[in-house]
Amino acid sequence: MDEPRMRRAIARKRDGAALAADEWTEIVAGFVAGTVGEAQMAALAMACVWRGLAFEETLALTRALVASGETLEWAALDPVDKHSTGGVADGVSAIVVPLVAACGIPVAKLSGRALGHTGGTLDKLEALPGVRTDLAPSAFRAQVERVGCAIAAQSERLVPGDKKLYALRDRTATVPDAGLIAASIVSKKIAGGAVAIVYDVKAGRGAFMHGASEAIELARLLTALTRAFGRPSRALVTDMDEPLGSRIGTGLELLEARDFLRGTHRAARLEVVCRAVAGALLRSAGVESPEERIERALASGAAYERFERMLAAQGARPGALDALVPATPAQRIVAERAGFVREIDAVALGECARELTARGGGAAGIAVMTPAGSVVRTGDELAISYGPGAASLAPRIRDAFNLNEAPAAARPLVVAECSA
Amino acid sequence: MDEPRMRRAIARKRDGAALAADEWTEIVAGFVAGTVGEAQMAALAMACVWRGLAFEETLALTRALVASGETLEWAALDPVDKHSTGGVADGVSAIVVPLVAACGIPVAKLSGRALGHTGGTLDKLEALPGVRTDLAPSAFRAQVERVGCAIAAQSERLVPGDKKLYALRDRTATVPDAGLIAASIVSKKIAGGAVAIVYDVKAGRGAFMHGASEAIELARLLTALTRAFGRPSRALVTDMDEPLGSRIGTGLELLEARDFLRGTHRAARLEVVCRAVAGALLRSAGVESPEERIERALASGAAYERFERMLAAQGARPGALDALVPATPAQRIVAERAGFVREIDAVALGECARELTARGGGAAGIAVMTPAGSVVRTGDELAISYGPGAASLAPRIRDAFNLNEAPAAARPLVVAECSA
Repeated sequence: MDEPRMRRAIARKRDGAALAADEWTEIVAGFVAGTVGEAQMAALAMACVWRGLAFEETLALTRALVASGETLEWAALDPVDKHSTGGVADGVSAIVVPLVAACGIPVAKLSGRALGHTGGTLDKLEALPGVRTDLAPSAFRAQVERVGCAIAAQSERLVPGDKKLYALRDRTATVPDAGLIAASIVSKKIAGGAVAIVYDVKAGRGAFMHGASEAIELARLLTALTRAFGRPSRALVTDMDEPLGSRIGTGLELLEARDFLRGTHRAARLEVVCRAVAGALLRSAGVESPEERIERALASGAAYERFERMLAAQGARPGALDALVPATPAQRIVAERAGFVREIDAVALGECARELTARGGGAAGIAVMTPAGSVVRTGDELAISYGPGAASLAPRIRDAFNLNEAPAAARPLVVAECSA
Repeated sequence: MDEPRMRRAIARKRDGAALAADEWTEIVAGFVAGTVGEAQMAALAMACVWRGLAFEETLALTRALVASGETLEWAALDPVDKHSTGGVADGVSAIVVPLVAACGIPVAKLSGRALGHTGGTLDKLEALPGVRTDLAPSAFRAQVERVGCAIAAQSERLVPGDKKLYALRDRTATVPDAGLIAASIVSKKIAGGAVAIVYDVKAGRGAFMHGASEAIELARLLTALTRAFGRPSRALVTDMDEPLGSRIGTGLELLEARDFLRGTHRAARLEVVCRAVAGALLRSAGVESPEERIERALASGAAYERFERMLAAQGARPGALDALVPATPAQRIVAERAGFVREIDAVALGECARELTARGGGAAGIAVMTPAGSVVRTGDELAISYGPGAASLAPRIRDAFNLNEAPAAARPLVVAECSA
């Protein structure tokens, strides 16, 4: 793809035309090789945000991104994988990966880092002393084979085209297009080699997509794209108007996963989504009556035991998980008046938790004591913040709780589900 | 303008907001200094093509481009300048500049090179042996003072921001936006220091803008922007569905200007536009009854004499203008059937002429023998091509003449005129 041809391709996209599959192949190959420059790629990306991508274009772009690097091979292991578009207190992966493995289905989870106000699964695992996520492909495979599950960072050798393109889109404000987003997500999952993939698309004020219809469109696109690669796939659209779990902050969210799997503390919203995602993973792997298997794996302690083994395999020191406690000092944030907790500003709490962990380390963060819908009296505990600097953040944390005389209307937590 | 602020500015433009004047100032300054990278600038340019620019944004961008370099100072000379958006056989500048000077109004014309299928005034002048257009500001001023007119290349020190931005827009298919186009044009004219400016906006198949309404919008914008800098300005929208003059090719167009000013050959369409543009220049300089002055300057030979003096001042060898003849061999292209010349494909002829001059030098090109509207019989001469390689181009040149049984409806040549 030389400069004049690329210019003509940009012009056609700018004018609303669809580019051909082999053009996308050449564009991505040229961009990775450096023959297509960043200026031309940025202009094309903005034209894509403007005009959108046809399904065939998105598929061609996804294929080109997959082809830009290596692909993991799993032989007969047939692992599944899941992806969340990111939210606040979204500890689903740390819970569901060992849970599904304990139900007999191998899980090879490729994860990312925190982005903006949302947490990243890798950061959460690494809050436990000793844990490594930069597994070489051979170590990743060996662990899935031996333990039944692993959570690893995307290798630099998988879809380097996506890494380069995403960095460009981030800098040039060309992230928000369903086709570009879907190609980025699906290319990584396909290169990871999973035989079935479940997507958890978050919608709401605390997610990157605010509207449910937008999220449903993305969910359909993700499953259709994945199916076009011959892999069955399911997508859930789940609510992210409020924080999902009750703990916000890398280590605190790992602690919440531990307590969830042990059965000592299960935030209601988090539990609904974990069971739905685990069910979708098992169903997409052909398991019948997944709900019963999930219940058994939780009740028997098998899921928690699998969680410990996975962390140990990735380097956790013995006893580290049990020893994990929130950072000090703890500061109570109380209600200044009575009312219903109508809304909780997930973005504000996500940002406060990020500031707390930046100062106080991985065990700092926020515990939400009154989920949305609760009734509180003056002086009731709304939240507890952990770690140094909590005092200065207290007003922002308190303001994140919108207290109202009337309760909010109940909203469904799993907004939609689709499969392909 | 650091990277995060630039990203937020791109996002706001992407979402349809207008950027503030000081943001444009910082963006252009950063782009020229290299702190704003090409990828971000390209994404912003595409977002501008998508969302358009508000007038205040266009003005701020124009000011920022002017401020990126030096500005010519003319003291009491008070020269005027004109600009054409470019067409085929558009030899207006070479004719009008000495003509207006002969009417007593100094002209300091800054010109550009050929772009795409259109010719550039500098290339035409340089077809005459010895002529230089890279005049230093002091030489440019001295010549306008002494001869009354000069046609010079834009100095690298004037609006370097526009040069860098235009090159980026060209590569990234982000040229077609009225605001970006107007800022590019007006910034150069303002930096050139003319006290009044006339724009000739071409509309039609042979122009960069095909539709008249689009051209009228640009004409209004150019005059309003120029007025915002305190300079009076007029804009004509003129037809470019067919070639304007009867000669296409750098040297042939200079030859046509010579013959026009001498009075030995005046193509009808070219004459109408030359008189209109010269009239607008004189009117904007406060001259009353410009038509009479123009007639006198042409009839008396004063305009031709001024043309010779201008070329001599810029280095033309004595007698070179008289000695200019078309390249050989000449090849007649004749009509294969009878009919009305309904349309002449200006782009096709412009491209053929460019190929001929690339092979045969500045005196190669095409003479159109039957303007649109003519009646031809089988075997009549449609065109003559000059220079080596003419035989292979003959079919394309012939096909550029659309012969039809019915004549085309007459169209106005000056479509609109506006002033500010």
